[in-house]
Amino acid sequence: MSNIQQRTFTLSTHGQGLYEITDEIRSFVRSSGAVQALLTLYVRHTSCSLLIQENADPEVQGDLKAYFARLVPPTTDPQMSYLRHTYEGPDDMPAHIKAAMMPVSLSIPVSSAEMVLGTWQGIYLFEHRDAPHQRQIVAHLA
Amino acid sequence: MSNIQQRTFTLSTHGQGLYEITDEIRSFVRSSGAVQALLTLYVRHTSCSLLIQENADPEVQGDLKAYFARLVPPTTDPQMSYLRHTYEGPDDMPAHIKAAMMPVSLSIPVSSAEMVLGTWQGIYLFEHRDAPHQRQIVAHLA
Amino acid sequence: MSNIQQRTFTLSTHGQGLYEITDEIRSFVRSSGAVQALLTLYVRHTSCSLLIQENADPEVQGDLKAYFARLVPPTTDPQMSYLRHTYEGPDDMPAHIKAAMMPVSLSIPVSSAEMVLGTWQGIYLFEHRDAPHQRQIVAHLA
Repeated sequence: MSNIQQRTFTLSTHGQGLYEITDEIRSFVRSSGAVQALLTLYVRHTSCSLLIQENADPEVQGDLKAYFARLVPPTTDPQMSYLRHTYEGPDDMPAHIKAAMMPVSLSIPVSSAEMVLGTWQGIYLFEHRDAPHQRQIVAHLA
Repeated sequence: MSNIQQRTFTLSTHGQGLYEITDEIRSFVRSSGAVQALLTLYVRHTSCSLLIQENADPEVQGDLKAYFARLVPPTTDPQMSYLRHTYEGPDDMPAHIKAAMMPVSLSIPVSSAEMVLGTWQGIYLFEHRDAPHQRQIVAHLA
Repeated sequence: MSNIQQRTFTLSTHGQGLYEITDEIRSFVRSSGAVQALLTLYVRHTSCSLLIQENADPEVQGDLKAYFARLVPPTTDPQMSYLRHTYEGPDDMPAHIKAAMMPVSLSIPVSSAEMVLGTWQGIYLFEHRDAPHQRQIVAHLA
């Protein structure tokens, strides 16, 4: 007998920014029947990230996008001219750098049949590429 | 039968910086009786982080605080004038940005009834806000 | 009965950069016989990181090293003169800072007896120190 449950979520993105997935993940946890468990999320890509962030004021999400766009500018920016991996577009290598700085996996305890998210915490995929992408997130509950 | 153990730790912080929680977590692991397990820590906030860092020289902790204060200055700094989420104070949006760059969850294997921390590794909460806060960390052991 | 398996991997590094460990980790997972499980990796140091990154173009790895070397320059750089923890060498405090910004632990679901790595994802240790080091990574599979 195994009490492990896994599901793969697919998300369509259309440009850089945060995409909230809290509701989909919450539904998965609730439908699992798990009361006390650990949920792990894993994103199968190297140019986007998983993030727990504030879900109250949408300006937080815009500000996060704006900050990281300045911290890691496109490779067309003269200050990034030392980067060599540029043939997939000016947003590609910055996407890999951001993916190194932000989580590829997240683990969230489940208690009394609910994720222990704080009051203002939402779960997001942070897309770092400009073009539309299909993103896969694997949820593992045990 | 479940061999899962969970506990919520509450920590009072008084300004930005690192607060060590290694002893409290170690006591929890020891009192659990777990010999071989995985400990996961999760912080229920979006303006502080969990960190594994050097516990030998306290200057490391001060330097970490100083570095991130420069990398993500308060929104009163002219170079941060593009940020919009400012009504909760000049340290608030920088706190969210730092919370995106550093872990919200950590997983540490337990072997021979002890966390496999390296010789110099301590467990810290990194507070990113100036005002005093009550912070909750959920520990999950399985 | 426990279905937990743990193994410690030791890696010799010789300077800053990414060292791929995907094959060793994959062998461990395959030899475990686990079909559906969660693999957690944990690095027992505060001056290197674990990273999931693109394994297709080696220039990505060089670019990651180059970016973080600029974001967190050696303490001999005048702009880093505010840092105090310098007696272990100009690369030491920057190594701790990078270790705060990138993962110390990673969790990867195992499905159908394989890690659910994306097509281009490899597992790396990112060494932040210049001198040769022996690095320990604990793998926990359950």
